[in-house]
Amino acid sequence: MTQFKNILLGHGSGGRLSHELITSLFIKHFSNKILLQQTDAALLDMASGKIAMTTDAFVVDPIFFPGGDIGKLAIAGTVNDLAVSGASPAYLSVSFIIEEGLPFLALEKIVRSMAEEALSAGIHIVTGDTKVVDRGKCDKIFITTSGVGQQRKEANQLATGKLISPGDKIIVNGFIGDHGMAVMSARNQLNIKAKIESDCASLNGMIDQVWENAGNIHFMRDATRGGLGTVMCEIVADKSWGINLFEQDIPVRTEVRGMCELLGFDPLYVANEGKVVMVVGSVVADKVMETLRKHEFGRNAVIIGEIVPQHAGKVWLHTSIGGKRIVDMPAGEQLPRIC
Amino acid sequence: MTQFKNILLGHGSGGRLSHELITSLFIKHFSNKILLQQTDAALLDMASGKIAMTTDAFVVDPIFFPGGDIGKLAIAGTVNDLAVSGASPAYLSVSFIIEEGLPFLALEKIVRSMAEEALSAGIHIVTGDTKVVDRGKCDKIFITTSGVGQQRKEANQLATGKLISPGDKIIVNGFIGDHGMAVMSARNQLNIKAKIESDCASLNGMIDQVWENAGNIHFMRDATRGGLGTVMCEIVADKSWGINLFEQDIPVRTEVRGMCELLGFDPLYVANEGKVVMVVGSVVADKVMETLRKHEFGRNAVIIGEIVPQHAGKVWLHTSIGGKRIVDMPAGEQLPRIC
Repeated sequence: MTQFKNILLGHGSGGRLSHELITSLFIKHFSNKILLQQTDAALLDMASGKIAMTTDAFVVDPIFFPGGDIGKLAIAGTVNDLAVSGASPAYLSVSFIIEEGLPFLALEKIVRSMAEEALSAGIHIVTGDTKVVDRGKCDKIFITTSGVGQQRKEANQLATGKLISPGDKIIVNGFIGDHGMAVMSARNQLNIKAKIESDCASLNGMIDQVWENAGNIHFMRDATRGGLGTVMCEIVADKSWGINLFEQDIPVRTEVRGMCELLGFDPLYVANEGKVVMVVGSVVADKVMETLRKHEFGRNAVIIGEIVPQHAGKVWLHTSIGGKRIVDMPAGEQLPRIC
Repeated sequence: MTQFKNILLGHGSGGRLSHELITSLFIKHFSNKILLQQTDAALLDMASGKIAMTTDAFVVDPIFFPGGDIGKLAIAGTVNDLAVSGASPAYLSVSFIIEEGLPFLALEKIVRSMAEEALSAGIHIVTGDTKVVDRGKCDKIFITTSGVGQQRKEANQLATGKLISPGDKIIVNGFIGDHGMAVMSARNQLNIKAKIESDCASLNGMIDQVWENAGNIHFMRDATRGGLGTVMCEIVADKSWGINLFEQDIPVRTEVRGMCELLGFDPLYVANEGKVVMVVGSVVADKVMETLRKHEFGRNAVIIGEIVPQHAGKVWLHTSIGGKRIVDMPAGEQLPRIC
């Protein structure tokens, strides 16, 4: 491999160059017993019971940004989709689509970062695929990860939203909008030097602790594309209850708020990559908060709202200045290629 | 949806347009109980025992070609990777990366074709993701599918290649090179009007019948990128035995051979998407052949070679004119973006 400075079409051919890339890069960094078999499909040991499966494509631009890169994002994003569904993320597959000419060092940096995030999330990358397309036919690199995990028995109804009822508290584990604004600040066309880092992180460890210490989570979703506001709208849609959010309790960093004002964004709709929205029974809310605040990714957790019997199917935001407005689902794209 | 002729950036935003695309297209065509839940992760029922997992990215150019399209390919390719590993393909995830401006009708045609192939393979598409990138940042559409399936107990050692031994027969289920030449003939720059159709097909049904009627398969691999020649080289690498192939027995259609000669390709290395190479014990070879030939995808199956104690780690091709040559793994890419 060392003779190549850039990725060539042949690295996606399935021939000798592909094999070299697999051995010298993927096997080296992702190394684990299952991947080492290098078979067409990885063989996994799963206990009996439900298995959760998810997939996400990552096309973030730029591929490196403050607080992370496309590789870290691709691991954390899929780990989080499993964790918020009530599963314990276990095994991930990785599929790369690479533009011919991508510097080998850039790919290596991404792969290292994936390996580090996999280690910190406690998951294994067990199988993968690499395609290389000619220059100009993709944008540097796109990564799709899929993941499977054992579903917690107590969480089989979690994702349906049917456990939510009036009186439940809505919790977010920290500042919103960091990821979106970190990526925006890294885009070349903007001459913004705000010190905002992406919150990109695998939240499965933190969520595990909430299950163990407090249990009784009624619903979870990670607030990625579309941000906190979109998740709220998704939760409330077609329900017989409503949501009250309290603007003054929603944590937004000063730098993020400033950049949003400058660019005309509403932090409610800006993407996060390390934020989970939890809906929990009011009796366990304090215990959940206590558990979250002890974890590095939940230190700034807050209760931002509650489920109410009024205004069914609607999210009301009670503003800092004493007014209220309806939070609606955005139609289109605020920030293309944010993840 | 009907108001949009083309895919917009907003269709990948996670907002209202995304939801509309999911409902009006993906849910409509892929409809099944699990997908309808529309949760972050799909919940699957799997029996106890080993589970096989695989992933592949599809970047074929052009996206429509004689005998198939990128959608059919994305389903069959992942189904086959599971089946050749000894698993029963059950659930697939689908991740789309779409170029802004792709005609909605093209996407719908692809989605329909995926739904049809899923039905004919007997698998369910249970979860997915869609990202849209700005015009010029990808090439129409890329699809990554991942799949899981229950591993057959009798196949736990299959993928390792450790069951292969001298005397075993090598079987292929029909004509080689069809897919590669069908895609080439569809490329605009070539003014070739050969009537070659891709062999793209899900082989799990045929392979199931071999397990049931003959059992005792020692190894399988689908001969995709890199073709039959590459698979042979992969099988033999670092082994204490060799492979003899008999050129006169390897089935190549006249049109494919002609087009290969014209373009300077060796059919041995041209991609297939519906061909499996089986290595089986000599005592069951006839039973395997009989079973294959009764199946629509195995009608032209032949024994093309055998495992021999000589020339360890090497593949020898005994040519039609009585000579012999070593089959080597190709270094680079014969045909970029063939799958």
